[in-house]
Amino acid sequence: MTKTISILGSTGSIGRQALEVVDGLPGSFNIFGLAAGRNLELLKKQIAKHKPELVSVATRELAFRLGKEFKGIEIVWGKDGLKQIAENSRNDLALVAVTGLNGLEPTISAINNGVNVALANKETLVSAGNIVTRLAKEKKVSIIPVDSEHSAIYQCIKGKDYSLVNKIILTASGGPFRTKSPEEIQNATVENTLNHPSWFMGDKITVDSATLMNKGLEVIEAHWLFGLDYTKIKVVIHPQSVIHGAVEFLDGSVISQMGLPSMHIPIQFALTYPGIYPGIKSNSLDLTQISNLEFEPPDLNRFPCLKLAYEAGKKGGTCPAVLNAVNEEAVYAFLQGKIRLTDIAHIVAESLEQLDNINNPSYDDILEVDKTSRKIVDEVFLSKF
Amino acid sequence: MTKTISILGSTGSIGRQALEVVDGLPGSFNIFGLAAGRNLELLKKQIAKHKPELVSVATRELAFRLGKEFKGIEIVWGKDGLKQIAENSRNDLALVAVTGLNGLEPTISAINNGVNVALANKETLVSAGNIVTRLAKEKKVSIIPVDSEHSAIYQCIKGKDYSLVNKIILTASGGPFRTKSPEEIQNATVENTLNHPSWFMGDKITVDSATLMNKGLEVIEAHWLFGLDYTKIKVVIHPQSVIHGAVEFLDGSVISQMGLPSMHIPIQFALTYPGIYPGIKSNSLDLTQISNLEFEPPDLNRFPCLKLAYEAGKKGGTCPAVLNAVNEEAVYAFLQGKIRLTDIAHIVAESLEQLDNINNPSYDDILEVDKTSRKIVDEVFLSKF
Repeated sequence: MTKTISILGSTGSIGRQALEVVDGLPGSFNIFGLAAGRNLELLKKQIAKHKPELVSVATRELAFRLGKEFKGIEIVWGKDGLKQIAENSRNDLALVAVTGLNGLEPTISAINNGVNVALANKETLVSAGNIVTRLAKEKKVSIIPVDSEHSAIYQCIKGKDYSLVNKIILTASGGPFRTKSPEEIQNATVENTLNHPSWFMGDKITVDSATLMNKGLEVIEAHWLFGLDYTKIKVVIHPQSVIHGAVEFLDGSVISQMGLPSMHIPIQFALTYPGIYPGIKSNSLDLTQISNLEFEPPDLNRFPCLKLAYEAGKKGGTCPAVLNAVNEEAVYAFLQGKIRLTDIAHIVAESLEQLDNINNPSYDDILEVDKTSRKIVDEVFLSKF
Repeated sequence: MTKTISILGSTGSIGRQALEVVDGLPGSFNIFGLAAGRNLELLKKQIAKHKPELVSVATRELAFRLGKEFKGIEIVWGKDGLKQIAENSRNDLALVAVTGLNGLEPTISAINNGVNVALANKETLVSAGNIVTRLAKEKKVSIIPVDSEHSAIYQCIKGKDYSLVNKIILTASGGPFRTKSPEEIQNATVENTLNHPSWFMGDKITVDSATLMNKGLEVIEAHWLFGLDYTKIKVVIHPQSVIHGAVEFLDGSVISQMGLPSMHIPIQFALTYPGIYPGIKSNSLDLTQISNLEFEPPDLNRFPCLKLAYEAGKKGGTCPAVLNAVNEEAVYAFLQGKIRLTDIAHIVAESLEQLDNINNPSYDDILEVDKTSRKIVDEVFLSKF
């Protein structure tokens, strides 16, 4: 059965791998829409190969440039372009793999029109989990996680009721500073922060992995995705990144999902769900080649960002949106050499204390809080350093 | 919903733990029948507590003795007694936890009468897998494994189609001789063979764990339970016994089941299947307390019994029944100090070579082969030593 899908963020890392999955399973997918930003060169190749009906790029100007080459295709742009692709009811599924809060509006539009969403965008659930999950329930739309940890949990729970879950375990590699002293972490350079031991990712998420904020954001995401209380969501440091997630059920039985550190498996799982098709990569997990799996509890003193995320999640309201926005700005400041790595947690903690929390925030509240939070970081905190 | 169950082997280790599960989930079970061997003392307590309608013991004499104390209960005995309890259509489920080929007849009778079977008896599937699984399919009866490794695989596959399985991985602790030299294994005493690192079991199965024949028998069991070719069944040595089994699906994703080395979880899983109820033991798996999981390939040179089991399984016919019977007799000979530990594999290998294989064996063929195999071990091989 051919599934009609659209890919938002087709030239990014997840988008490119999603198109590899599409290529690897001929006849399984029909591409309705592709949305990219500014990488026209790659996008042109993707259009030529996958022949989408609708394409979106970052700006009107880029759209015109592209339009000259592809006469028969409708080309749109900007935020509205993303939305148009996501919400089209021709889609069986929209893969939302754009970065930041750009993912929120198209996700909501897709759900509103009954389009299932494969979600590879953390910010959407972290900042607006209440809105998105409520709407998905109302519209009976599936949100299938693409993140490897959440995909793992999703696969472990599959076919069982969420009320049967005792706890879920999200694993974290621990990042480059897992075994380092507080002093070493404080003096971390951008260079050694970006030296991630097991996954290759973008700079922002790599810094988040080093501070464990990434895992903190995933805890909040898991809270919304699986409807679980924060006391039921545990983080375990697992340097080998072989076990991506585990679920303990009521009866004490623990089901875990494992695999090589590759995004192809969770992407393919989300695109083909609920079907399971042959993996597009032939490499298989050989436990005897790994030979040793280690686990340790996270150290919340050396990695306070994880603690802050739990706190923001438990407070709810707009706190997770503040956490997310402030963290992002602080990470960019660190990457630009303006602050130290350990300042990220200080800035997040102070912001969470100073900004008012809005309970049951609306969509507009979230966008507003996101903007305010970023402004405050730039104007108030960064001026201190 | 109360489930009516019978327990065959109620005074044995699995039977006792099954009744602990029944006690731990009040209102969930109604005990129709209890079958024990000669442990009248414990059986009397079980009868007084669980008030079964039908009870079976090893002999007529024991049945009479018991009958004097429990006037209102029907008491039967011997092989026919086991059968009467198992096949009664009042049962929703019969737990077959008697040892050896004694499990075969009641299992077949239960299936014939449409009673689901929780199977804690290896010999039934090893020796007569073709007959039992064909019948279960025909009668649309579930065989739910109680063995922790097979329960693990069953839980991992649950809700998915068997055709989606790339391979299954059965883990083995490796036994007390995992790191020992061939000379040390050859000179193993009964005492250091029975010193099992992670599970507490009976003597026979403990010797089988030391030779890896236990895992070999489980490979054959898995072949029948899950309908998988032997090339899709892998064994991995995992000394910590935390991961009990894993399944790699078509897409490369690996789902595993983990837990503390306790039989309560698989027993409860089988008894409550398809429901999941709160675990009767409060202990939870804390990965950070385990901290290190190791995996290594099995060494078929030091542990030839595993290789012999794969070979017997692949040959099929009566070979697995020969393997099982000859191994059992050889293990008893070892436990009695008649032969060395390494002689077990020699005797099994020679028997498999010398005895004719019968393809598509009947029930009678299997019983006959079982008898002949044991006789040959006693008369021919043991006289050599």
